[in-house]
Amino acid sequence: MFRLRLGRLGLGQRCYAQTPKPPYWAVIFTSERTANSKGYDAMSQRMVQLAEQQPGFLGVESARETLGITVSYWASEEAIVAWKANASHVIAQEKGKRDWYKSYSTRICRVERDYRFQKHGEEHEETKIEY
Amino acid sequence: MFRLRLGRLGLGQRCYAQTPKPPYWAVIFTSERTANSKGYDAMSQRMVQLAEQQPGFLGVESARETLGITVSYWASEEAIVAWKANASHVIAQEKGKRDWYKSYSTRICRVERDYRFQKHGEEHEETKIEY
Repeated sequence: MFRLRLGRLGLGQRCYAQTPKPPYWAVIFTSERTANSKGYDAMSQRMVQLAEQQPGFLGVESARETLGITVSYWASEEAIVAWKANASHVIAQEKGKRDWYKSYSTRICRVERDYRFQKHGEEHEETKIEY
Repeated sequence: MFRLRLGRLGLGQRCYAQTPKPPYWAVIFTSERTANSKGYDAMSQRMVQLAEQQPGFLGVESARETLGITVSYWASEEAIVAWKANASHVIAQEKGKRDWYKSYSTRICRVERDYRFQKHGEEHEETKIEY
């Protein structure tokens, strides 16, 4: 497995997910928040910690401006279904709909191919890994 | 087709992509920028405008913090291959590797299922659409 970046920052949401060779699965969660942020950050961090303990969890990538995009990666579709049904996650989903999200969109995808680029050292030195 | 939000903001990157019923395709582009931003915004906007003219383009969603995540949606894998080979896009990709990106990861996915949530009016009123 090619590691694009070694190590993790914080909860792993600010660096690349260390995914294996395809196929694997991705959940693209796009959301728009309400003005109510009470409890959101703590729950969000807790959900990442819980997901990391879930069988088949591969990693997560996240960014927010007006729209937030969180992509979590999974070894199988079954792993995604199990995570969706996780009791603590079900509670978080309900709180999310009631308090934190104006709207969201969830897309369950099979990752068929991927490729990565990383610049090494000075400009113009680069490595491209394509599966 | 269920439209989560009517209309578009700016270049369409700040609101939900209006995607059809699955299956369709997604390209998850996760990137880390260099300090060099010269020409980046103009090229980025131009690429969205060009992609919108490309056959099979369905929409794009984008957010950036430390990591940037741009997800573009496509009707078929062939449409993604054609967009990757688009002459102006090839030039932008090369400039991207030389100037704007420290690293990136591109994942090509088939969207198998999706569901959406939108709060209507006051709290606790909600509609959930699940395919």
